Amino acid sequence: MTGWIKIAGLGPGSDDLVTPEVTAALAEATDIVGYIPYVARVAGREGLTLHASDNRVEIDRSQHALQMAADGRRVVVVSSGDPGVFAMAAAVFEALENGPDEWRDIPIDVLPGITAMLSASARAGAPLGHDFCTINLSDNLKPWPLIEKRLRLAAQADFAMVFYNPRSKSRPEGFVKTLEILREECEPERLILFARAVSRPDEVIRISTLAEATPDMADMQTVVIVGSSLTRVIERPGTPIVYTPRFTPE
Amino acid sequence: MTGWIKIAGLGPGSDDLVTPEVTAALAEATDIVGYIPYVARVAGREGLTLHASDNRVEIDRSQHALQMAADGRRVVVVSSGDPGVFAMAAAVFEALENGPDEWRDIPIDVLPGITAMLSASARAGAPLGHDFCTINLSDNLKPWPLIEKRLRLAAQADFAMVFYNPRSKSRPEGFVKTLEILREECEPERLILFARAVSRPDEVIRISTLAEATPDMADMQTVVIVGSSLTRVIERPGTPIVYTPRFTPE
Repeated sequence: MTGWIKIAGLGPGSDDLVTPEVTAALAEATDIVGYIPYVARVAGREGLTLHASDNRVEIDRSQHALQMAADGRRVVVVSSGDPGVFAMAAAVFEALENGPDEWRDIPIDVLPGITAMLSASARAGAPLGHDFCTINLSDNLKPWPLIEKRLRLAAQADFAMVFYNPRSKSRPEGFVKTLEILREECEPERLILFARAVSRPDEVIRISTLAEATPDMADMQTVVIVGSSLTRVIERPGTPIVYTPRFTPE
Repeated sequence: MTGWIKIAGLGPGSDDLVTPEVTAALAEATDIVGYIPYVARVAGREGLTLHASDNRVEIDRSQHALQMAADGRRVVVVSSGDPGVFAMAAAVFEALENGPDEWRDIPIDVLPGITAMLSASARAGAPLGHDFCTINLSDNLKPWPLIEKRLRLAAQADFAMVFYNPRSKSRPEGFVKTLEILREECEPERLILFARAVSRPDEVIRISTLAEATPDMADMQTVVIVGSSLTRVIERPGTPIVYTPRFTPE
């Protein structure tokens, strides 16, 4: 049997947002590897082994997946959202680069998924309808001064901004500092969206402004979207729509 | 009959990358509205009217879709990729904001899709595995000096960068200038990827460097991804892998 790895994105939560390509890969797999809550989204069946592991062991998990594929297994590494956006694809490639030469012969595919910012944006309207940037606010893997520099330059470029992993339990102060920096760089009326658990039963979308936003509006399940200076609200019965116009005046 | 609009993303090309949510919306629709090549991707059937229009009439098309929904039709507005990323969602909301009050009562949903940068990134490896920005290089809808400012600030922030609409036939000089600016701001070895028609039969992925890139490597069907200073290549039999590590050293 020839082994392979597919690094697959399960989308934000609803089965309706899983691509047929990913569904087909899960049906062909002998082994599923990933973080506990993501592996829990894959239905068990005869002949399929589920390997669920805890957070922060991404390299161990990747090595395990690569070795199983080298041994002839058909391995799907699952991520929430898209595997290429702050998820497992980069970890698998890091393990591959530093691993034994034989791993470089393993067939590897990355199967894209609906990443959290796309489902959050869709639910709110179209806040990412113009140029934007996407920043992982966790300072586990990079120094805080780099995050601060990126925030200030992104504000000066008038990008809409998306933040993944805005506020961990162990380091909640990063998002407090983020709001302070944004208040220095942007006007108080700047729109900021908090999208939690989009497409899941406990989904919450909150629309706020920089002046009114508080750090507790975000947690690690939340994607935060800060509008550009042109991002607008359309009031209507029910939930308002937030969008960024396609057109920027001279 | 109660009308509605769903603004749906068809993904980059392959049916395997269309979400079940979008497939279900297409099955319920009475009318499909969109740019000619995207409407052509929807199979005709009894009871379904296809309204295909040319490029650059996004607001007319949106008004038409909104009026049909107000008249009780079930309308799906289709975009390639994701409707919220440089696509139809912002155009529909612009038309809604400036249209008659009755349009604000129309049920509107945005259905996310696999946007071109996710499928391009997946095919190349994981070049967007760390912080990145996404810029529409067309200067139809914004002044060129704003594009130049964003390019320079993005390079200074050391974001990976994604460019949509890099090079139109009518204004090919924008991408020439883009490469010049990037060569001023970044080192010559900086990786740059050209991903054309991903997931379609004529797919081409090209890996180059800023020193070696030429403007004709891009057209309007191409997504361009410029790595950050840390983006790397893993050589192996067959296509090399391009990825941006999760970890940034102090």
